Amino acid sequence: MFIGAQVSLYPMTSDFVGVILSGLEALAPYRDHLRIQTDDMSTLMVGAPEPLFGAMRDLFAGAARSPAHVTMHATISRGCPGEPDEPSCRCEVLAVAQGLPLADRQAQALAAVQGAPLAGVEIDVQFSLYVLGQDRHMDEIYGCIDFLKSSGTFLTSKNFCTRLRGDAGAVFETLRQAFLRFGPAEGHVTIDLTASANSPSRR
Amino acid sequence: MFIGAQVSLYPMTSDFVGVILSGLEALAPYRDHLRIQTDDMSTLMVGAPEPLFGAMRDLFAGAARSPAHVTMHATISRGCPGEPDEPSCRCEVLAVAQGLPLADRQAQALAAVQGAPLAGVEIDVQFSLYVLGQDRHMDEIYGCIDFLKSSGTFLTSKNFCTRLRGDAGAVFETLRQAFLRFGPAEGHVTIDLTASANSPSRR
Repeated sequence: MFIGAQVSLYPMTSDFVGVILSGLEALAPYRDHLRIQTDDMSTLMVGAPEPLFGAMRDLFAGAARSPAHVTMHATISRGCPGEPDEPSCRCEVLAVAQGLPLADRQAQALAAVQGAPLAGVEIDVQFSLYVLGQDRHMDEIYGCIDFLKSSGTFLTSKNFCTRLRGDAGAVFETLRQAFLRFGPAEGHVTIDLTASANSPSRR
Repeated sequence: MFIGAQVSLYPMTSDFVGVILSGLEALAPYRDHLRIQTDDMSTLMVGAPEPLFGAMRDLFAGAARSPAHVTMHATISRGCPGEPDEPSCRCEVLAVAQGLPLADRQAQALAAVQGAPLAGVEIDVQFSLYVLGQDRHMDEIYGCIDFLKSSGTFLTSKNFCTRLRGDAGAVFETLRQAFLRFGPAEGHVTIDLTASANSPSRR
């Protein structure tokens, strides 16, 4: 199993380089658990979902505490058949989820979101979950959407994606649960994620 | 068939509102052919691939001609089973592609990129193509990657995505061809796209 993300931070300020560089400091506690490489378009993070979503949450929550309007995009993937097996990506939650009925997985996902630590900063997210290589991929998508609607972070459905709003802790736990509990454990599942904070459109 | 995108423009400058608003003017010629709706996170565009990719190209190329570092993200989708049928999305190219062997589709895609109009501005792109609801989805992905490598806009493969570079005209034609010619005509195909221009990391 290979799990990771390509992550980009976009501060809408002329001092964007400063905000990005100080944002990357939030990744320091994760460098022992994730392989992290930055190029001119994105930062690759490879590792298990626990540190992976923690790192994205802390990167974005840190930048969202600045006054600037800031957005983040991530392409998140697990189980891509084109990627090598990576022992550091092993995830017990994924292994356990395998074989459980949809209703049980929804209940576990909900409990995880309710237990998420508070980050103290409100963010907006919209994202799409893709379950690949399965004829009946929409069953898992609809099952995930049912969970999202009860998660406490659901804002609205949009064409092609779902909108969440809430504390960064609960929102990123919702995303991690959507990524882990839906679609087969050994399958190829991806997320196209956009996060936003401090947008003047919302003031 | 329902075809469209959620598109967001991110100018890395304190005058981001001005750049976004003037960028949206590039969409004026497309408003007769696309349904366009903007909210605080993205602009929804619904319609056939010809105006859809033209609109995204002109929106981004216009913003890339400013001196500011600017990026754009788009979640692009066709054939999502959860969306209604929309007559304005009808596309002859998609209908014709149905049933043609992979090699023929690759040749047609290449010819389209070679005939693309020059936009006069160089951009970087990275994107992921997802073919959903098919057991053998990676065959179409690998077939698409072969086309990309011969397209003249291919830069490099990255984990989870492919990197393109070139004139905005050729790059967006490459994206449109990837979207149209690979995966079944009636299938659910999506793209997670990030574009970048004027990055200080490249200077």
